[in-house]
Amino acid sequence: MERPIQASILTENLKNNLNFVRSLANDSKIWSVIKANAYGHGIREVYAGLKETDGFALLDIKDACLLREIGWAGPVLLLEGIFAKDELNECYEKNIDIVIHHSQQMSWLSQWLNAMTFDQQTVVSQKICIWLKLNSGMNRLGLNSQEYLLCFKKLRDYRLKVNHLTHFANADEIGLEPSVESQMNVFAKVIEDLSGDVSTANSAAVLWHHNTHFDWVRPGIMLYGASPTGISEDIQIFGLKPAMNLSSKIISVQDLNEGDRVGYGGQYTATSKIRVGIVACGYADGYPRVVSNGTQVWVSNSNSPSLGFYVKTIGRVSMDMITVDITNHKTIGVGSDVELWGEHVPVDTVAKCANTVGYELLCAIAPRVKRVVV
Amino acid sequence: MERPIQASILTENLKNNLNFVRSLANDSKIWSVIKANAYGHGIREVYAGLKETDGFALLDIKDACLLREIGWAGPVLLLEGIFAKDELNECYEKNIDIVIHHSQQMSWLSQWLNAMTFDQQTVVSQKICIWLKLNSGMNRLGLNSQEYLLCFKKLRDYRLKVNHLTHFANADEIGLEPSVESQMNVFAKVIEDLSGDVSTANSAAVLWHHNTHFDWVRPGIMLYGASPTGISEDIQIFGLKPAMNLSSKIISVQDLNEGDRVGYGGQYTATSKIRVGIVACGYADGYPRVVSNGTQVWVSNSNSPSLGFYVKTIGRVSMDMITVDITNHKTIGVGSDVELWGEHVPVDTVAKCANTVGYELLCAIAPRVKRVVV
Repeated sequence: MERPIQASILTENLKNNLNFVRSLANDSKIWSVIKANAYGHGIREVYAGLKETDGFALLDIKDACLLREIGWAGPVLLLEGIFAKDELNECYEKNIDIVIHHSQQMSWLSQWLNAMTFDQQTVVSQKICIWLKLNSGMNRLGLNSQEYLLCFKKLRDYRLKVNHLTHFANADEIGLEPSVESQMNVFAKVIEDLSGDVSTANSAAVLWHHNTHFDWVRPGIMLYGASPTGISEDIQIFGLKPAMNLSSKIISVQDLNEGDRVGYGGQYTATSKIRVGIVACGYADGYPRVVSNGTQVWVSNSNSPSLGFYVKTIGRVSMDMITVDITNHKTIGVGSDVELWGEHVPVDTVAKCANTVGYELLCAIAPRVKRVVV
Repeated sequence: MERPIQASILTENLKNNLNFVRSLANDSKIWSVIKANAYGHGIREVYAGLKETDGFALLDIKDACLLREIGWAGPVLLLEGIFAKDELNECYEKNIDIVIHHSQQMSWLSQWLNAMTFDQQTVVSQKICIWLKLNSGMNRLGLNSQEYLLCFKKLRDYRLKVNHLTHFANADEIGLEPSVESQMNVFAKVIEDLSGDVSTANSAAVLWHHNTHFDWVRPGIMLYGASPTGISEDIQIFGLKPAMNLSSKIISVQDLNEGDRVGYGGQYTATSKIRVGIVACGYADGYPRVVSNGTQVWVSNSNSPSLGFYVKTIGRVSMDMITVDITNHKTIGVGSDVELWGEHVPVDTVAKCANTVGYELLCAIAPRVKRVVV
């Protein structure tokens, strides 16, 4: 045995979540977004749960190659396109579709195509499909309207298949600017006379803006059973389920007297006799250092592992440990199983105690945490 | 080329920091602490910079084995000892020293030794050294006084070499309880009549409590050039230097008009025409999502890469991108090099903007960030 922390990747829950996307956007194809190492879950590890998707979307070309190694033969899309011209050769070899969000990327592609014969270009047009990305108001990535139309024409001149994409800034919240509606208006105006498939919906738009589904939806966080809003109730009502159980064990127990303090900074002081469990999980595993005292943790009863109790963190999170108050649970002790987040404690609940959202915690799971597919 | 983010590990700075520990604690040996994948820097990657140490201390037995593979033949210490009895076989084979912080660990060791002949036990005593850990007031890991003395006697009966260790809760700050002095008093009283080496000092105690250095010091964060207090000035005055440069590139530029917003939540609104650079670094790389607007980033001049400017983040940190205001710097554009933290921007400064300390950010560098030894 090693240090007992591990992230269990729950295949059935991934399937459940993907099926839910399918039911909600039943006229659309699905790009399952697996960037950031499948939001921290591991690309290899989520594959079994997501392989009924229509395509996978991600950032790093090496991850796209990994998908091909694993055996995925369907569509793959690089959401930020290429970072240098030479990546185009790999996209060609591996049939990888690319986004173009910047005129520099268009130049690279033109240079690459211009060095080919007409026949070679024809082969390319059958192997690579381009998704143009419009900046419709988020002002992060994306071409402006003029650049967009210019690129479209050029790409069609090369006889490439060209599709259309934009990204929403506020699909998870009403009342913020730019609104989904205003971005949709900008987008619709630019692409109205252009051929090609359309994709706009991230998780929040899949859930709450059904008029944005079009040809391909692009769910990310919802596949992993965490909420686009950071509020777990917002997705629980749809039956979405967590794709990760982060678990560890209690490795020591301390009996404290009134006035004793716990951990760095002596941040917590016992106001009576208490019993403290030390859990092998700290911020270097990805548990957030800044959670407040009282964050929920679920601990199994050593005698009947299927039973458990909610307990609360006390003191500061260390690099490799957290401390929980187990005073009222005599059956909990060294060796007891602990769930940091997962089926009993939503990751969004932990995130809220750290003033962030579940996305960040899932992505931040450290390499030293073993991932196990179940 | 791949996505351009990378963490450069600065070998000369690691050497500088180790040498500084040597000069400050010149009568002590040094356990260089490389737990949590060398605080996120990578064990393989820091080895060249730290191999003049006397020993390496860490948590995971598989990391201890990795050290042996790399070629390290000197002392290795498991700071939390073993997590199961069967790990003892590996400790024996690989000459790995272990902490005992809990009576359960003592039981495992006794059972293991009792199954041996006297001669086998003698060989063990030459290959494994035990560090008993006392809970002197931090109330996290460690034996209480009675357990400690009992374990010491048992271990000596097995003719094992036994050393002494405790850990401070507040070596980085005066005025908090338990104080270094009070913990030292508890510890001294327990070990006063016992033989063996002594180790108490973490980075903060190496720097600010010279009377705690004893036989072995255990510097961690200071080796990586970040501060135990989270305040970078506290260590810059000693000449400690950052061991990591986290760098990336600008991958897109957007020109905004007054009233335009940037990123998720439209959190930032331009109050005049501005020019925004989009950097390939987000919270899924380990850059904290919760930093405030105005966090410093250093960007190189594309024309003269040795020159650069401090610019500031605007809008919310996304999973894969941050946005910076580059309005006043015409020479900055797509392809410009960006330092997120390192030699120009202390990691502790970024951490402060996220309400945490540099420790957490360094440990949270994602696997997708390539580490390059320089």
